[in-house]
Amino acid sequence: MYANTDSLIDLITILGISAFALSAVLAAREKKADLFTVIVLGIITAVGGGTVRDCILGVPMFWAEHTYFIWVAIISSTFGFFCVPLLEKRIVNKANLYIDSIALAMFSIQATDKAWVLDFGLPISPILMGIITGVGGGVMRDVLIQRPSLLLNKELYATPVAIGCVIHASVLYLAPEFSDVSALVAIGLIIYLRHLSISRQLQVPAWAVLK
Amino acid sequence: MYANTDSLIDLITILGISAFALSAVLAAREKKADLFTVIVLGIITAVGGGTVRDCILGVPMFWAEHTYFIWVAIISSTFGFFCVPLLEKRIVNKANLYIDSIALAMFSIQATDKAWVLDFGLPISPILMGIITGVGGGVMRDVLIQRPSLLLNKELYATPVAIGCVIHASVLYLAPEFSDVSALVAIGLIIYLRHLSISRQLQVPAWAVLK
Amino acid sequence: MYANTDSLIDLITILGISAFALSAVLAAREKKADLFTVIVLGIITAVGGGTVRDCILGVPMFWAEHTYFIWVAIISSTFGFFCVPLLEKRIVNKANLYIDSIALAMFSIQATDKAWVLDFGLPISPILMGIITGVGGGVMRDVLIQRPSLLLNKELYATPVAIGCVIHASVLYLAPEFSDVSALVAIGLIIYLRHLSISRQLQVPAWAVLK
Repeated sequence: MYANTDSLIDLITILGISAFALSAVLAAREKKADLFTVIVLGIITAVGGGTVRDCILGVPMFWAEHTYFIWVAIISSTFGFFCVPLLEKRIVNKANLYIDSIALAMFSIQATDKAWVLDFGLPISPILMGIITGVGGGVMRDVLIQRPSLLLNKELYATPVAIGCVIHASVLYLAPEFSDVSALVAIGLIIYLRHLSISRQLQVPAWAVLK
Repeated sequence: MYANTDSLIDLITILGISAFALSAVLAAREKKADLFTVIVLGIITAVGGGTVRDCILGVPMFWAEHTYFIWVAIISSTFGFFCVPLLEKRIVNKANLYIDSIALAMFSIQATDKAWVLDFGLPISPILMGIITGVGGGVMRDVLIQRPSLLLNKELYATPVAIGCVIHASVLYLAPEFSDVSALVAIGLIIYLRHLSISRQLQVPAWAVLK
Repeated sequence: MYANTDSLIDLITILGISAFALSAVLAAREKKADLFTVIVLGIITAVGGGTVRDCILGVPMFWAEHTYFIWVAIISSTFGFFCVPLLEKRIVNKANLYIDSIALAMFSIQATDKAWVLDFGLPISPILMGIITGVGGGVMRDVLIQRPSLLLNKELYATPVAIGCVIHASVLYLAPEFSDVSALVAIGLIIYLRHLSISRQLQVPAWAVLK
C-alpha cells in the first residue's frame, strides 16, 4: 500500500519535472535558443523554485541528494529540443499542461509541508515556500528569455497555488490531525483551477486586477 | 529610554516595510497586475534584499524568525491594491517616498552592522550587504515587471545608500568607539540625499555618468 | 615549483576578475549607467556566479574569505569607467576577451572540482556548479541591464564551458587518477573554442539551434 503510494509520487515527480522542462523548450522556441540553452532553461524551470526554497531554508539541496531530478530535466529538454513539432501537437501540448498542473500542485504542497516540519516561520512562511517552489522556476525561465513573467499573466497559474497552500497551511495550523486530507484537497483544488484555466480560459476576475 | 529607542526602531521598520510594499503596488500598476501578483511583488520588494543578504551570510532567514515582516508586506500591498487613487495623491505619494527613504537608510546600515558583527569579509563585504539589503528588493521588483531597474535610473537612490554604508563601515574599521554616532550620521546623510533627490530632483552629476 | 603554480593561478584569477568587471563596463555603456551602477554591475559580473554556487553548496562565501575578489572588481570597473575609449580600442578589447576566456575556463573547472570534493550530487551536479560559476555573473549582468542574456546569443560562450565541465567531471568519475590532466585539457579546450568564436566567429552549428 505505502509502496504503491510512494511509487505513484515518484512517477508524478518524474513526469512533472519533465513537463516543467518541456514548458521551457516551448518558451525558448520564440528566441531560437540553442540546445545547450534549452537544457539550461529546462533545468532551471524544473528545479529553480526548489533551489531557492532550499537556499532560504538553509537545508541541503534536494537535487544534489537526488540527482535524478537533473537527469530527468536534461533528458526531457533534449528530447523536447529534437521533437518540437510533436510537442506542439494540440493533444500533446494539452497533456503536458495537465501533467504540469498535477506536478505544480504536488510540489507546492510538498514544499509547504517541508517548511512546516522545519518549523520555519509558521504559519505564513511555509505558504511562501510553497508558492516559490511551484512557480519560481517558471518565473526565472521567463526572466531569462525576456518575456513577461507568468506573474504578469492573466492566466490562473500562480493564484491557484497560493489558494491551495493557504488552505493546507491553515489546516496544519488549526487542525493538524486533518493534514493528510487537506494536502489532497489542496492538490485537487489547484489541479481543478488549472483545469478551468486550461479548458475554459477562466481568468483572474476583473475586481482582482489592478486598474 | 532603551525601550523607547526599540519602539521607535520597530515603528520605522513596520512603516518602512509598508512603504517598500506600496512602491511595488505603484510599479505594478503599469502592468495591470492582479491582486496575488501585487502581494507577491510587495513581499519581494519589502524583504527580497534582506533575503539575499541572509542567504549570502548563511544565517537563519530574518522573516522566518520575525514573521511580522511578511504580514506587514501582505497587509500593505493588499491595502494599496484597493486604494491606488489614494496612493497616487501627491501628498500621500510624497509621504511614502520619505518613509521609504528613512527605512532604506535604516535597513542598509543595520545590515552593514549585522555583517560586521559576523566578521564577514571586513571591511568591504558589510558595505555590499548594506547595499544589497537596501536596494535588492527594489531591483527584483523592477526585473519582474520588466522595467529598467533602479540601478539604471539617474535618480539618486542606490548611490546615497552606498555612500552611507561606506562611511559607517569606515568608522567601524578605523574608530569603532564612534560607531553609534556614525550609524546616525550615515542614516541622516542617506535620508538627506534622498530628500534632495525627491524635492529638488538632484541627480547623479554628469561626470559620474558613463558616456 | 608549487609556489610558481600558485602565483600563476592567483595572477589569472586577478586578471580574470578584472576582465569580467570590464565586460560589465562595456555592457553598461549602452544604458548610460552611472559610476555606482557600473561598479555594482562589475562586482556582480565578477563574483555573481560564484556567489550562487556557494549559496547552493551551503559553504562560506568565497569573497568574504578572500575580499581581494571584491577589491579587484571595484578597482577594475572604476578604472574602466574613466577609460572607456581605451577599452574600446580593438586590441584592448580583444586582449580582454582572451583574458575573459582564460578566467572563464579556470573558474568553471575550479568550481567543478570544489563541488566534487564536497561530494555534491556526483557526477552531474558539479558540472552544473561549473557552468553556474562561469556564466552566472554574466547572465545577471545582462538581466540587470535588460539586454538579451548571453544564454540567448549564438556566440559560443556557455557551450564551451559546458563541454569542458562534462569532460572534466567524466574523468573525475571514471578515472580520477587523470584528473590533473583532464583539468588542463578541459581548460585548454574551453579557451580554444572561445578563441574560434572570437577570431573566426564560429557559432553554434545550425542543427543545434531550435527551429
